[in-house]
Amino acid sequence: MREQTGENKGIPVVRKILSANDQAAMRNRAQLAAHNIIAVNVMSSPGAGKTTLLMATIDALKNTRRVGIVEGDVASQVDAERIATTGAPVVQINTGGGCHLDAPMVGQALESLPLDTLDMVFIENVGNLICPVSFDLGQAYKVALLSIPEGHDKPYKYPAIFEAVDLVVVTKSDLMPYLDFDLPLFKQLVRGLNPNAPVLVLSAKTGEGMDDWLEWLSAQAA
Amino acid sequence: MREQTGENKGIPVVRKILSANDQAAMRNRAQLAAHNIIAVNVMSSPGAGKTTLLMATIDALKNTRRVGIVEGDVASQVDAERIATTGAPVVQINTGGGCHLDAPMVGQALESLPLDTLDMVFIENVGNLICPVSFDLGQAYKVALLSIPEGHDKPYKYPAIFEAVDLVVVTKSDLMPYLDFDLPLFKQLVRGLNPNAPVLVLSAKTGEGMDDWLEWLSAQAA
Repeated sequence: MREQTGENKGIPVVRKILSANDQAAMRNRAQLAAHNIIAVNVMSSPGAGKTTLLMATIDALKNTRRVGIVEGDVASQVDAERIATTGAPVVQINTGGGCHLDAPMVGQALESLPLDTLDMVFIENVGNLICPVSFDLGQAYKVALLSIPEGHDKPYKYPAIFEAVDLVVVTKSDLMPYLDFDLPLFKQLVRGLNPNAPVLVLSAKTGEGMDDWLEWLSAQAA
Repeated sequence: MREQTGENKGIPVVRKILSANDQAAMRNRAQLAAHNIIAVNVMSSPGAGKTTLLMATIDALKNTRRVGIVEGDVASQVDAERIATTGAPVVQINTGGGCHLDAPMVGQALESLPLDTLDMVFIENVGNLICPVSFDLGQAYKVALLSIPEGHDKPYKYPAIFEAVDLVVVTKSDLMPYLDFDLPLFKQLVRGLNPNAPVLVLSAKTGEGMDDWLEWLSAQAA
């Protein structure tokens, strides 16, 4: 028995919790690359406007890019049904209680999308400002949405998501007149956590600022 | 060695994941009861207005109830600092990445509150519509906040929290004119998940609907 007291002596070792996920993420990334697809992992609190932004994006890109959507929710397919009205191919993942998507789930969802016909895939993560950050899905880019009504103080309280992403999008800018959202302070807080992530401000409802977002997407896909 | 092959033979058994939490919750509940304190576990998405509602509540109750606050956040103490301006005793818990409070954290926080001088304790959970639901903190009542900008469809996508709570409070009602929030549908969805939980609508900013909330609190404390 004395031989089996070390990592190399047959005793099982619990490895880094993310490694099974990271392996699946690597497979997703390879598969997306093989199809020349840019994948964007979209994260935010519940109700920050992920689905509404994606619907406006599908519409704006309809003549230039073929877009597919992976929808993540704890339960229901109401978001997938909204997306389906645009005509874009969409797959719903229900986590059944889980507070984030993981790479194996996304891998399974990609099997149901017509990858040969797509240029971009948006992965709408579960509405959550905490859990999704830790899980690589195999995306090319990570984007965080923060809606005006949530308040400018969120980078203090949820720093990890702002540190992790390639872009921060402030949504529902049409509500700015009715709320005390300090945009300069918000930008400063994000820059403190993540000097490289641009901060865009838009309203998918009114169209204000949508051009900046579409330009950013276009630059990543170039 | 053969003697040690069963649960009763000295082999450790991994128990239900919540049981350590449930034991701590039981201790919290007993301690709160010993001090005649009503504790309310307040849960919502990030930015739904938990802190603002609690500040308005402390102010409204200042002549009738002595209120203490346990603040839960992933990081920072900005919410505790806001609460401290009211003069109410407050303890900040930082989960350091965790997406919910648990009963041992709350037990530790209670040690820092002057329980002998308090009638009510509000526990402001981490901003998250998913994780906090599964953890009993030892509270007497659980309340879910849902802000108007988050949208009326949330019970479809996050059913567990609406099933679990004793009261649902719709916040930021002052924003109703600017958003397409279907209140009758929202109430119907909540009733479908939880026929016993009243749904109140209020704005802590304008004061609209605050009386109903204060009345509900008063009824629970009677």
